[in-house]
Amino acid sequence: MSAPTIETSTTTPATAGPREGAFGHAVALACRECGHRTELGPHYACPECFGPLEVAYEFPAVTREEIEAGPSNIWRYKALLPVPDDIEQSPNTEPGFTRLLPAKNLAAELGLDRLWVKDDSTNPTNSFKDRVVACALSAARELDAKVFACPSTGNLANAVAAAGARAGMKTVVFIPSNLEHAKQVNSAVYTDSLVAVDGNYDDVNKLASEIAGEEDGWAFVNVNVRPYYAEGSKTLGYEIAEQLGWRLPDQVVIPVASGSQLTKVDKAFQELITLGLVEDKPYRIYGAQAEGCSPVSAAYKAKVDAIRPVKPDTIAKSLAIGNPADGIYVLDICRRTGGAVEDVTDDQVREGILLLARTEGVFTETAGGTTVAVLRKLVETGQLDTSLETVVINTGMGLKTLDAVADRVGPAATIAPSYDAFTATGIA
Amino acid sequence: MSAPTIETSTTTPATAGPREGAFGHAVALACRECGHRTELGPHYACPECFGPLEVAYEFPAVTREEIEAGPSNIWRYKALLPVPDDIEQSPNTEPGFTRLLPAKNLAAELGLDRLWVKDDSTNPTNSFKDRVVACALSAARELDAKVFACPSTGNLANAVAAAGARAGMKTVVFIPSNLEHAKQVNSAVYTDSLVAVDGNYDDVNKLASEIAGEEDGWAFVNVNVRPYYAEGSKTLGYEIAEQLGWRLPDQVVIPVASGSQLTKVDKAFQELITLGLVEDKPYRIYGAQAEGCSPVSAAYKAKVDAIRPVKPDTIAKSLAIGNPADGIYVLDICRRTGGAVEDVTDDQVREGILLLARTEGVFTETAGGTTVAVLRKLVETGQLDTSLETVVINTGMGLKTLDAVADRVGPAATIAPSYDAFTATGIA
Ligand SMILES: Cc1ncc(COP(=O)(O)O)c(C=O)c1O
Ligand SMILES: Cc1ncc(COP(=O)(O)O)c(C=O)c1O
Ligand SMILES: [Zn+2]
Ligand SMILES: [Zn+2]
Repeated sequence: MSAPTIETSTTTPATAGPREGAFGHAVALACRECGHRTELGPHYACPECFGPLEVAYEFPAVTREEIEAGPSNIWRYKALLPVPDDIEQSPNTEPGFTRLLPAKNLAAELGLDRLWVKDDSTNPTNSFKDRVVACALSAARELDAKVFACPSTGNLANAVAAAGARAGMKTVVFIPSNLEHAKQVNSAVYTDSLVAVDGNYDDVNKLASEIAGEEDGWAFVNVNVRPYYAEGSKTLGYEIAEQLGWRLPDQVVIPVASGSQLTKVDKAFQELITLGLVEDKPYRIYGAQAEGCSPVSAAYKAKVDAIRPVKPDTIAKSLAIGNPADGIYVLDICRRTGGAVEDVTDDQVREGILLLARTEGVFTETAGGTTVAVLRKLVETGQLDTSLETVVINTGMGLKTLDAVADRVGPAATIAPSYDAFTATGIA
Repeated sequence: MSAPTIETSTTTPATAGPREGAFGHAVALACRECGHRTELGPHYACPECFGPLEVAYEFPAVTREEIEAGPSNIWRYKALLPVPDDIEQSPNTEPGFTRLLPAKNLAAELGLDRLWVKDDSTNPTNSFKDRVVACALSAARELDAKVFACPSTGNLANAVAAAGARAGMKTVVFIPSNLEHAKQVNSAVYTDSLVAVDGNYDDVNKLASEIAGEEDGWAFVNVNVRPYYAEGSKTLGYEIAEQLGWRLPDQVVIPVASGSQLTKVDKAFQELITLGLVEDKPYRIYGAQAEGCSPVSAAYKAKVDAIRPVKPDTIAKSLAIGNPADGIYVLDICRRTGGAVEDVTDDQVREGILLLARTEGVFTETAGGTTVAVLRKLVETGQLDTSLETVVINTGMGLKTLDAVADRVGPAATIAPSYDAFTATGIA
């Protein structure tokens, strides 16, 4: 990765700089590694140590009542996001405030006392990525970007293409060329500029970094505006807490690709505690990966701090990031909170999809199948406390990865349209 | 149709009858034709004239504030639905309160002053059917049904199978065997009892009526508990009004299969006026059909009152009901309110899907493509007033009917993972 090159190009904006309040109560970009502070702008790597930058805030007092009076989408938390106060006026997909479903059937099946499914499959483009993209779109707009873009394992491309269309921005999305057909079409309906790249996600990501370094005015949501983008995942944490009646769960199971989402759920919980919106209490965060792309889980199990990149080979393509940018922070959080990182086979992923559908009426994609299967494995291996309140996050949607289960389910019978034909099936 | 047979079987419940408050503030089932009142129960045809029954209420005083304090799903309107006051305690999919999106790009494209998309693609199983099924599930539970079932053009089967799984009920869903693959899988993931029927929807529907007449304890959501089921579509009307700031739009465009949804949006508007929740004002309701299944549109254009059934032949399979149960009421409402019923070709349906995706970032299925294409046609033919505030309802989701557009869109280029390969595409 050529951090210096990119840094040069992204630190020379030709414009007068963002307007007052463009990033809400955010005050700086802080390096996760050395703490060095950089001004808000199109930066993502620390000028001192090339560590990743994260948005730092000076939050005002925020009350539960103010949040509850907001809209039924992520902008109810706008005071805690790097977005302007008038964010709702700009065209966006209005994601979030998805269902937190009590999951009694799945809990009974797995032997858990209290289980919830946070179901992000009902977001505008059917994954949690709409949350991060909405924040990235705001940043791209405030930074006066000309092109809205991303490298993607599929869902992000869907979300960026849809949000870009609504915003009327030129949008270019890059995906591995072997991606599921549904995810390809689901981007191409929104934009003329879907680019398939012969390579895996890590190759696509490298190409995106190169383009970001060479071209002016491109906002790659998860590259050069990544600090703003990533903050969007905090809303998953906020919503879980609010929907539980303003309290934190005991255990949360979260899928891990780059690892960004998991780290931001933890950040959200910490912020809620600091702001006095929930009571301080211990919680455990668990990461879920597919065995065919489990660099973080492997490091967790080997009890090491460094992530060794892998070449992904799994049906969970949305999680197929072999060199996860936030992997080390995932390790740190899961260890610190007393959680774990676990992985499951592709067959277990398929079973996870069907298990969630059969018990709770939620049809997830391979990423959710991974997470549910990991939940089961954590219970079976005693790594998760079955007496504690647990939330499992479903981040995606089954129609995008039909092939994973299409050969396992189907009509019980095909009959002539007559009552006799029906009774002959034995279903009645 | 053998209404008498079914009537006999559905008027002989063996149990003591539903509990007090099982149907909320509903007080009777009233015949749409002769007005005759029947007690609340598993009835759907008038014992006097075989006309369809509809739920009648004695509403309490309901305030905007009470509704706004409710959950972000259809149960915020539970006082106006035939469900018990403790409905939220029973497992259900928690549908509704979907986005009402300002659609400036589409408005500009079509030459409309003010346009909104009511987007039901983000419901739990990605169509408006989750609303009606949630009400039907409540009725099935209160009536002590043993099997939760439906004949379906696809989306209803998805919604019934998912809700049945969550509720832990035995669920059997019937579909035409030529249905889209995605919609088949999307039912089969939830239930072992998906039955494909060699025939069109009208054949499947007839079979369901037969089974309902023969078997005890089957709740066919859109057959013998249809009166309760249908009320669920009122929530689309309530939400549109609430999300507009408690006022009615001037014009609404709604897809028509059986015609139930359209009639219930009208009923919702009338109830809101009667309850003093919105100001009384004129509004126009428009119905949308695909040319290959346009019995209601044909009757509208021929200026006749009777609907002549047709054999459907269109890619808009979710709207492919050749003998629509509520067709005559659709005609009546569209005429009375000064609206119209219009139809479009399959090619226009495809264009409608892409138009909505490109302009507003919403990926709809063929039903939504039909509705958007009809909106365009209504403007082009001067049947819709472009200066008035208009709402178009998107009732479904594009991943369920991928084939409709899959050959029209795709990657702009497939490249090697290098900057040179990218610049050669000319996209930058
Ligand atoms: C459905 C789904 N879930 C989870 C993830 C993981 O997100 P992250 O990269 O933040 O770890 C992705 C990433 O693409 C995804 O598409
Ligand atoms: C997506 C979609 N839209 C609209 C309709 C029409 O509904 P109705 O039968 O109430 O007219 C259907 C019916 O199946 C549907 O699936
Ligand atoms: Zn640093
Ligand atoms: Zn009658």
